[in-house]
Amino acid sequence: METVHPFYPLGLSLPHYVPNTLSSIQLVSTFAAGTFVILVGTWILVKATSKEIATGERLLCLWFALCGFIHFFFEGYFGATPGEIAGSTHLFAQLWREYALSDSRYMSYDAFTVAMERICALFCGPLSFYLVYAIATSHPSRYPLQIMVSLAQLYGDVLYYATAAIGVYESTRPERYYFWVYFVMLNAFWIFIPGYLLYRGFVEVVEVFKRDAAGRKGKAE
Amino acid sequence: METVHPFYPLGLSLPHYVPNTLSSIQLVSTFAAGTFVILVGTWILVKATSKEIATGERLLCLWFALCGFIHFFFEGYFGATPGEIAGSTHLFAQLWREYALSDSRYMSYDAFTVAMERICALFCGPLSFYLVYAIATSHPSRYPLQIMVSLAQLYGDVLYYATAAIGVYESTRPERYYFWVYFVMLNAFWIFIPGYLLYRGFVEVVEVFKRDAAGRKGKAE
Repeated sequence: METVHPFYPLGLSLPHYVPNTLSSIQLVSTFAAGTFVILVGTWILVKATSKEIATGERLLCLWFALCGFIHFFFEGYFGATPGEIAGSTHLFAQLWREYALSDSRYMSYDAFTVAMERICALFCGPLSFYLVYAIATSHPSRYPLQIMVSLAQLYGDVLYYATAAIGVYESTRPERYYFWVYFVMLNAFWIFIPGYLLYRGFVEVVEVFKRDAAGRKGKAE
Repeated sequence: METVHPFYPLGLSLPHYVPNTLSSIQLVSTFAAGTFVILVGTWILVKATSKEIATGERLLCLWFALCGFIHFFFEGYFGATPGEIAGSTHLFAQLWREYALSDSRYMSYDAFTVAMERICALFCGPLSFYLVYAIATSHPSRYPLQIMVSLAQLYGDVLYYATAAIGVYESTRPERYYFWVYFVMLNAFWIFIPGYLLYRGFVEVVEVFKRDAAGRKGKAE
Protein backbone atom coordinates (compact mmCIF):
# COMPACT_ATOMS: atom_id res chain seq x y z
CA MET A 1 0.00 0.00 0.00
CA GLU A 2 1.35 3.41 -0.93
CA THR A 3 1.35 6.24 1.63
CA VAL A 4 -0.77 9.17 0.51
CA HIS A 5 1.32 12.37 0.48
CA PRO A 6 1.21 15.66 -1.44
CA PHE A 7 4.69 15.45 -3.05
CA TYR A 8 5.70 14.92 -6.67
CA PRO A 9 6.57 12.79 -8.59
CA LEU A 10 3.42 10.72 -8.09
CA GLY A 11 4.31 7.32 -6.70
CA LEU A 12 7.30 8.62 -4.68
CA SER A 13 7.65 6.22 -1.76
CA LEU A 14 7.63 8.00 1.61
CA PRO A 15 6.52 5.29 4.07
CA HIS A 16 7.19 7.43 7.18
CA TYR A 17 5.24 10.47 5.96
CA VAL A 18 3.11 12.33 8.49
CA PRO A 19 1.12 15.46 7.53
CA ASN A 20 1.99 18.86 9.01
CA THR A 21 0.08 19.98 12.11
CA LEU A 22 0.70 23.66 11.20
CA SER A 23 -0.90 25.30 8.16
CA SER A 24 1.09 26.80 5.27
CA ILE A 25 0.28 30.32 6.45
CA GLN A 26 1.41 29.52 10.00
CA LEU A 27 4.68 28.07 8.72
CA VAL A 28 5.44 30.94 6.33
CA SER A 29 4.61 33.46 9.10
CA THR A 30 6.87 31.64 11.57
CA PHE A 31 9.75 31.67 9.09
CA ALA A 32 9.19 35.36 8.34
CA ALA A 33 9.03 36.19 12.07
CA GLY A 34 12.25 34.26 12.72
CA THR A 35 13.96 36.15 9.89
CA PHE A 36 12.73 39.47 11.32
CA VAL A 37 14.02 38.67 14.83
CA ILE A 38 17.46 37.66 13.47
CA LEU A 39 17.73 40.82 11.35
CA VAL A 40 16.61 43.22 14.11
CA GLY A 41 18.74 41.46 16.72
CA THR A 42 21.84 41.66 14.51
CA TRP A 43 21.15 45.32 13.68
CA ILE A 44 20.99 46.22 17.37
CA LEU A 45 24.07 44.17 18.24
CA VAL A 46 26.19 45.61 15.40
CA LYS A 47 24.99 49.17 16.10
CA ALA A 48 25.93 48.82 19.77
CA THR A 49 29.36 47.27 19.22
CA SER A 50 30.63 48.87 15.99
CA LYS A 51 29.62 52.49 15.91
CA GLU A 52 31.87 53.53 13.04
CA ILE A 53 30.91 51.15 10.25
CA ALA A 54 28.99 52.39 7.23
CA THR A 55 25.35 51.49 6.61
CA GLY A 56 26.25 49.27 3.64
CA GLU A 57 28.58 47.26 5.85
CA ARG A 58 25.93 47.01 8.56
CA LEU A 59 23.46 45.62 5.99
CA LEU A 60 26.10 43.06 5.00
CA CYS A 61 26.31 41.99 8.65
CA LEU A 62 22.55 41.40 8.58
CA TRP A 63 22.88 39.32 5.42
CA PHE A 64 25.62 37.07 6.80
CA ALA A 65 23.90 36.74 10.20
CA LEU A 66 20.75 35.56 8.42
CA CYS A 67 22.83 33.21 6.25
CA GLY A 68 24.58 31.86 9.34
CA PHE A 69 21.31 31.03 11.08
CA ILE A 70 19.70 29.54 7.98
CA HIS A 71 22.78 27.53 6.93
CA PHE A 72 23.85 26.27 10.32
CA PHE A 73 20.54 25.67 12.09
CA PHE A 74 17.83 25.25 9.43
CA GLU A 75 19.86 23.57 6.67
CA GLY A 76 22.00 21.88 9.33
CA TYR A 77 18.83 20.32 10.79
CA PHE A 78 18.04 18.88 7.38
CA GLY A 79 21.64 17.74 6.83
CA ALA A 80 21.70 15.98 10.21
CA THR A 81 18.36 14.19 9.83
CA PRO A 82 17.58 13.86 6.10
CA GLY A 83 15.87 10.50 6.60
CA GLU A 84 13.51 11.83 9.28
CA ILE A 85 12.13 14.97 7.64
CA ALA A 86 9.08 13.20 6.16
CA GLY A 87 7.97 11.75 9.50
CA SER A 88 8.92 14.29 12.20
CA THR A 89 6.68 16.87 13.89
CA HIS A 90 9.62 19.21 14.73
CA LEU A 91 8.96 22.77 13.54
CA PHE A 92 11.94 22.64 11.16
CA ALA A 93 10.72 19.33 9.69
CA GLN A 94 7.31 20.92 9.10
CA LEU A 95 8.97 23.91 7.40
CA TRP A 96 10.99 21.55 5.18
CA ARG A 97 7.81 19.59 4.34
CA GLU A 98 6.12 22.82 3.31
CA TYR A 99 9.11 23.78 1.15
CA ALA A 100 9.32 20.25 -0.28
CA LEU A 101 5.99 20.81 -2.06
CA SER A 102 8.28 22.68 -4.48
CA ASP A 103 11.06 20.09 -4.32
CA SER A 104 10.50 16.60 -2.90
CA ARG A 105 14.24 15.90 -2.98
CA TYR A 106 14.13 17.23 0.58
CA MET A 107 11.88 14.31 1.52
CA SER A 108 13.53 11.50 -0.43
CA TYR A 109 17.16 11.50 0.78
CA ASP A 110 18.40 12.73 -2.60
CA ALA A 111 22.20 12.32 -2.57
CA PHE A 112 23.01 15.74 -4.07
CA THR A 113 20.59 17.65 -1.83
CA VAL A 114 21.86 15.94 1.33
CA ALA A 115 25.55 16.40 0.45
CA MET A 116 25.10 20.04 -0.61
CA GLU A 117 23.13 20.95 2.53
CA ARG A 118 25.69 19.28 4.80
CA ILE A 119 28.58 21.16 3.21
CA CYS A 120 26.55 24.38 3.29
CA ALA A 121 25.73 23.93 7.00
CA LEU A 122 29.26 22.98 8.10
CA PHE A 123 31.27 25.30 5.84
CA CYS A 124 29.05 28.29 4.99
CA GLY A 125 27.24 28.36 8.36
CA PRO A 126 30.15 29.01 10.76
CA LEU A 127 32.00 31.18 8.21
CA SER A 128 28.88 33.36 7.77
CA PHE A 129 28.78 34.00 11.53
CA TYR A 130 32.51 34.74 11.51
CA LEU A 131 31.97 37.15 8.60
CA VAL A 132 29.57 39.23 10.72
CA TYR A 133 32.43 39.71 13.18
CA ALA A 134 35.06 40.21 10.44
CA ILE A 135 32.96 42.88 8.65
CA ALA A 136 32.00 44.67 11.88
CA THR A 137 35.68 44.86 12.91
CA SER A 138 37.14 45.40 9.37
CA HIS A 139 39.29 42.32 9.85
CA PRO A 140 41.70 41.70 6.90
CA SER A 141 40.26 38.19 6.40
CA ARG A 142 36.93 39.72 5.50
CA TYR A 143 37.33 39.97 1.69
CA PRO A 144 38.80 36.53 0.98
CA LEU A 145 36.13 34.98 3.22
CA GLN A 146 33.38 37.02 1.54
CA ILE A 147 34.61 35.66 -1.81
CA MET A 148 34.77 32.09 -0.52
CA VAL A 149 31.37 32.00 1.21
CA SER A 150 29.61 33.85 -1.63
CA LEU A 151 31.12 31.58 -4.28
CA ALA A 152 30.18 28.45 -2.32
CA GLN A 153 26.59 29.74 -1.93
CA LEU A 154 26.39 30.66 -5.61
CA TYR A 155 27.87 27.36 -6.82
CA GLY A 156 25.62 25.30 -4.53
CA ASP A 157 22.56 27.21 -5.67
CA VAL A 158 23.40 26.99 -9.39
CA LEU A 159 23.92 23.23 -8.96
CA TYR A 160 20.61 23.06 -7.11
CA TYR A 161 18.72 24.77 -9.94
CA ALA A 162 20.65 22.86 -12.62
CA THR A 163 20.07 19.39 -11.16
CA ALA A 164 16.33 20.14 -10.85
CA ALA A 165 16.24 21.36 -14.48
CA ILE A 166 18.05 18.20 -15.72
CA GLY A 167 15.39 16.19 -13.84
CA VAL A 168 12.73 18.25 -15.70
CA TYR A 169 11.39 19.51 -12.33
CA GLU A 170 9.83 16.12 -11.65
CA SER A 171 10.09 16.77 -7.89
CA THR A 172 7.98 19.97 -8.07
CA ARG A 173 4.22 20.12 -7.58
CA PRO A 174 2.38 21.48 -10.64
CA GLU A 175 0.88 24.60 -8.96
CA ARG A 176 2.67 27.74 -10.16
CA TYR A 177 2.99 29.12 -6.62
CA TYR A 178 5.29 26.33 -5.44
CA PHE A 179 7.52 26.54 -8.49
CA TRP A 180 7.80 30.32 -8.79
CA VAL A 181 7.63 31.43 -5.16
CA TYR A 182 9.26 28.60 -3.18
CA PHE A 183 11.61 27.07 -5.73
CA VAL A 184 12.60 30.01 -7.96
CA MET A 185 12.18 33.11 -5.79
CA LEU A 186 13.45 31.93 -2.40
CA ASN A 187 16.60 30.44 -3.92
CA ALA A 188 17.15 33.44 -6.21
CA PHE A 189 18.27 35.49 -3.17
CA TRP A 190 21.30 33.16 -2.99
CA ILE A 191 22.09 33.80 -6.67
CA PHE A 192 21.88 37.59 -6.81
CA ILE A 193 23.25 38.61 -3.42
CA PRO A 194 26.26 36.23 -3.41
CA GLY A 195 26.82 37.08 -7.11
CA TYR A 196 27.06 40.77 -6.24
CA LEU A 197 29.19 40.17 -3.12
CA LEU A 198 31.54 37.92 -5.08
CA TYR A 199 31.95 40.66 -7.66
CA ARG A 200 32.53 43.33 -4.98
CA GLY A 201 35.00 41.11 -3.11
CA PHE A 202 36.90 40.42 -6.32
CA VAL A 203 37.11 44.14 -7.16
CA GLU A 204 38.29 45.05 -3.64
CA VAL A 205 41.04 42.42 -3.68
CA VAL A 206 42.25 43.46 -7.14
CA GLU A 207 42.33 47.11 -5.99
CA VAL A 208 44.36 46.35 -2.87
CA PHE A 209 46.91 44.37 -4.89
CA LYS A 210 47.21 47.30 -7.32
CA ARG A 211 47.79 49.74 -4.42
CA ASP A 212 50.31 47.32 -2.96
CA ALA A 213 52.22 46.99 -6.24
CA ALA A 214 52.19 50.78 -6.74
CA GLY A 215 53.42 51.29 -3.16
CA ARG A 216 56.33 48.87 -3.64
CA LYS A 217 57.27 50.49 -6.94
CA GLY A 218 57.15 53.90 -5.22
CA LYS A 219 59.48 52.67 -2.47
CA ALA A 220 61.89 51.09 -4.96
CA GLU A 221 62.26 54.29 -6.97
CA MET B 1 16.47 -7.74 -23.26
CA GLU B 2 19.14 -6.02 -21.17
CA THR B 3 22.33 -4.78 -22.78
CA VAL B 4 25.42 -6.51 -21.39
CA HIS B 5 27.88 -3.92 -20.06
CA PRO B 6 30.60 -3.87 -17.40
CA PHE B 7 29.17 -1.09 -15.20
CA TYR B 8 27.62 -1.20 -11.73
CA PRO B 9 25.01 -1.34 -10.31
CA LEU B 10 23.95 -4.57 -12.02
CA GLY B 11 20.80 -4.01 -14.03
CA LEU B 12 21.69 -0.40 -14.95
CA SER B 13 19.96 0.24 -18.28
CA LEU B 14 22.38 1.49 -20.96
CA PRO B 15 20.62 0.56 -24.24
CA HIS B 16 23.13 2.47 -26.44
CA TYR B 17 26.24 0.91 -24.90
CA VAL B 18 29.09 -0.08 -27.24
CA PRO B 19 32.34 -1.58 -25.89
CA ASN B 20 35.64 0.30 -26.17
CA THR B 21 37.86 -0.44 -29.19
CA LEU B 22 40.96 0.62 -27.21
CA SER B 23 42.26 -1.40 -24.25
CA SER B 24 42.57 0.00 -20.71
CA ILE B 25 46.34 0.25 -21.03
CA GLN B 26 46.05 2.11 -24.36
CA LEU B 27 43.57 4.58 -22.84
CA VAL B 28 45.57 5.20 -19.66
CA SER B 29 48.75 5.65 -21.76
CA THR B 30 46.99 8.08 -24.09
CA PHE B 31 45.74 10.15 -21.14
CA ALA B 32 49.21 10.13 -19.55
CA ALA B 33 50.82 11.14 -22.87
CA GLY B 34 48.31 13.98 -23.31
CA THR B 35 49.07 15.21 -19.79
CA PHE B 36 52.80 15.07 -20.49
CA VAL B 37 52.47 17.08 -23.73
CA ILE B 38 50.33 19.76 -21.99
CA LEU B 39 52.80 20.08 -19.08
CA VAL B 40 55.93 20.23 -21.25
CA GLY B 41 54.30 22.60 -23.73
CA THR B 42 53.21 24.96 -20.96
CA TRP B 43 56.65 24.81 -19.32
CA ILE B 44 58.34 25.83 -22.59
CA LEU B 45 55.79 28.55 -23.29
CA VAL B 46 56.01 30.08 -19.80
CA LYS B 47 59.83 29.83 -19.74
CA ALA B 48 60.03 31.63 -23.08
CA THR B 49 57.58 34.42 -22.25
CA SER B 50 58.08 35.07 -18.51
CA LYS B 51 61.74 34.79 -17.68
CA GLU B 52 61.53 36.33 -14.22
CA ILE B 53 58.91 34.22 -12.44
CA ALA B 54 59.96 31.83 -9.69
CA THR B 55 59.90 28.05 -10.13
CA GLY B 56 56.93 27.67 -7.76
CA GLU B 57 54.92 30.07 -9.87
CA ARG B 58 55.92 28.27 -13.05
CA LEU B 59 54.71 24.97 -11.54
CA LEU B 60 51.42 26.69 -10.73
CA CYS B 61 51.12 27.66 -14.41
CA LEU B 62 51.52 23.97 -15.31
CA TRP B 63 48.80 23.03 -12.84
CA PHE B 64 46.28 25.55 -14.15
CA ALA B 65 47.12 24.79 -17.79
CA LEU B 66 46.44 21.10 -17.12
CA CYS B 67 43.22 22.01 -15.27
CA GLY B 68 42.17 24.24 -18.17
CA PHE B 69 42.59 21.46 -20.72
CA ILE B 70 40.93 18.80 -18.55
CA HIS B 71 38.03 21.03 -17.45
CA PHE B 72 37.28 22.71 -20.76
CA PHE B 73 37.94 19.95 -23.28
CA PHE B 74 37.67 16.61 -21.47
CA GLU B 75 34.99 17.44 -18.89
CA GLY B 76 33.41 19.84 -21.40
CA TYR B 77 33.07 16.94 -23.86
CA PHE B 78 31.17 14.99 -21.21
CA GLY B 79 29.06 18.02 -20.25
CA ALA B 80 28.11 18.64 -23.88
CA THR B 81 27.20 15.02 -24.72
CA PRO B 82 26.30 13.23 -21.46
CA GLY B 83 23.68 11.07 -23.20
CA GLU B 84 26.11 9.85 -25.88
CA ILE B 85 29.07 8.73 -23.77
CA ALA B 86 27.89 5.11 -23.51
CA GLY B 87 27.50 4.67 -27.27
CA SER B 88 30.22 6.79 -28.93
CA THR B 89 33.59 5.64 -30.30
CA HIS B 90 35.21 9.10 -29.82
CA LEU B 91 38.50 8.86 -27.89
CA PHE B 92 37.10 11.01 -25.05
CA ALA B 93 33.98 8.81 -24.83
CA GLN B 94 36.23 5.75 -24.58
CA LEU B 95 38.26 7.43 -21.83
CA TRP B 96 35.05 8.27 -19.93
CA ARG B 97 33.83 4.67 -20.36
CA GLU B 98 37.10 3.42 -18.89
CA TYR B 99 36.76 5.85 -15.96
CA ALA B 100 33.08 4.96 -15.52
CA LEU B 101 34.08 1.47 -14.42
CA SER B 102 34.74 3.32 -11.15
CA ASP B 103 31.60 5.48 -11.41
CA SER B 104 28.78 4.67 -13.80
CA ARG B 105 27.14 8.03 -13.12
CA TYR B 106 29.19 9.15 -16.12
CA MET B 107 27.21 6.71 -18.27
CA SER B 108 23.72 7.19 -16.85
CA TYR B 109 23.05 10.94 -17.22
CA ASP B 110 23.17 11.43 -13.44
CA ALA B 111 21.81 14.94 -12.78
CA PHE B 112 24.50 15.97 -10.27
CA THR B 113 27.40 14.67 -12.36
CA VAL B 114 26.14 16.39 -15.53
CA ALA B 115 25.44 19.72 -13.78
CA MET B 116 28.75 19.72 -11.90
CA GLU B 117 30.80 18.90 -15.02
CA ARG B 118 29.04 21.58 -17.06
CA ILE B 119 29.74 24.26 -14.45
CA CYS B 120 33.31 23.00 -14.08
CA ALA B 121 33.88 23.14 -17.85
CA LEU B 122 32.32 26.56 -18.39
CA PHE B 123 33.50 28.31 -15.21
CA CYS B 124 36.72 26.58 -14.08
CA GLY B 125 37.96 25.79 -17.61
CA PRO B 126 38.34 29.31 -19.07
CA LEU B 127 39.36 30.78 -15.69
CA SER B 128 42.12 28.17 -15.36
CA PHE B 129 43.55 29.21 -18.73
CA TYR B 130 43.30 32.86 -17.73
CA LEU B 131 45.09 32.03 -14.45
CA VAL B 132 48.12 30.75 -16.39
CA TYR B 133 48.35 34.20 -17.96
CA ALA B 134 47.58 36.03 -14.69
CA ILE B 135 50.24 34.10 -12.74
CA ALA B 136 52.86 34.41 -15.50
CA THR B 137 52.33 38.20 -15.63
CA SER B 138 51.72 38.75 -11.86
CA HIS B 139 48.35 40.30 -12.67
CA PRO B 140 46.51 41.63 -9.56
CA SER B 141 43.47 39.45 -10.35
CA ARG B 142 45.58 36.36 -9.80
CA TYR B 143 44.89 35.76 -6.08
CA PRO B 144 41.12 36.28 -6.02
CA LEU B 145 40.83 34.07 -9.12
CA GLN B 146 43.09 31.43 -7.57
CA ILE B 147 40.80 31.41 -4.52
CA MET B 148 37.65 31.21 -6.68
CA VAL B 149 38.81 28.45 -9.04
CA SER B 150 40.40 26.39 -6.25
CA LEU B 151 37.31 26.66 -4.06
CA ALA B 152 35.02 25.67 -6.95
CA GLN B 153 37.23 22.66 -7.73
CA LEU B 154 37.37 21.66 -4.06
CA TYR B 155 33.63 22.08 -3.50
CA GLY B 156 32.75 20.18 -6.69
CA ASP B 157 35.09 17.34 -5.74
CA VAL B 158 33.87 17.10 -2.13
CA LEU B 159 30.29 16.96 -3.44
CA TYR B 160 31.37 14.32 -5.94
CA TYR B 161 32.87 12.10 -3.23
CA ALA B 162 30.00 12.82 -0.80
CA THR B 163 27.18 11.99 -3.24
CA ALA B 164 28.92 8.69 -4.13
CA ALA B 165 29.30 7.86 -0.42
CA ILE B 166 25.62 8.63 0.27
CA GLY B 167 24.79 6.24 -2.61
CA VAL B 168 27.04 3.61 -0.87
CA TYR B 169 29.28 3.50 -3.98
CA GLU B 170 26.62 1.56 -5.85
CA SER B 171 27.98 2.95 -9.16
CA THR B 172 31.50 1.56 -8.59
CA ARG B 173 32.71 -1.83 -9.80
CA PRO B 174 33.82 -4.12 -6.94
CA GLU B 175 37.51 -4.47 -7.99
CA ARG B 176 39.76 -2.47 -5.65
CA TYR B 177 41.73 -0.97 -8.54
CA TYR B 178 38.74 0.96 -9.90
CA PHE B 179 37.73 2.30 -6.52
CA TRP B 180 41.16 3.22 -5.15
CA VAL B 181 43.02 4.26 -8.30
CA TYR B 182 40.36 5.77 -10.57
CA PHE B 183 37.77 7.00 -8.08
CA VAL B 184 39.81 7.92 -4.98
CA MET B 185 43.29 8.70 -6.29
CA LEU B 186 42.57 10.58 -9.51
CA ASN B 187 40.05 12.85 -7.81
CA ALA B 188 42.25 13.32 -4.74
CA PHE B 189 44.54 15.61 -6.79
CA TRP B 190 41.61 18.05 -6.93
CA ILE B 191 41.22 17.93 -3.15
CA PHE B 192 44.82 18.43 -2.03
CA ILE B 193 46.15 20.85 -4.64
CA PRO B 194 43.13 23.22 -4.64
CA GLY B 195 43.00 22.90 -0.83
CA TYR B 196 46.60 24.08 -0.59
CA LEU B 197 46.16 26.82 -3.23
CA LEU B 198 43.02 28.07 -1.50
CA TYR B 199 44.94 28.31 1.77
CA ARG B 200 47.89 30.08 0.07
CA GLY B 201 45.57 32.50 -1.74
CA PHE B 202 43.74 33.28 1.49
CA VAL B 203 47.01 33.98 3.34
CA GLU B 204 48.33 36.21 0.51
CA VAL B 205 45.12 38.28 0.43
CA VAL B 206 45.04 38.69 4.23
CA GLU B 207 48.71 39.78 4.16
CA VAL B 208 48.15 42.40 1.45
CA PHE B 209 45.19 43.88 3.36
CA LYS B 210 47.36 44.06 6.49
CA ARG B 211 50.12 45.87 4.57
CA ASP B 212 47.49 48.18 3.06
CA ALA B 213 45.99 49.03 6.47
CA ALA B 214 49.47 49.60 7.94
CA GLY B 215 50.41 51.84 4.99
CA ARG B 216 47.28 53.98 5.43
CA LYS B 217 47.89 54.26 9.15
CA GLY B 218 51.49 55.29 8.44
CA LYS B 219 50.30 57.99 6.02
CA ALA B 220 47.66 59.27 8.45
CA GLU B 221 50.15 59.72 11.29
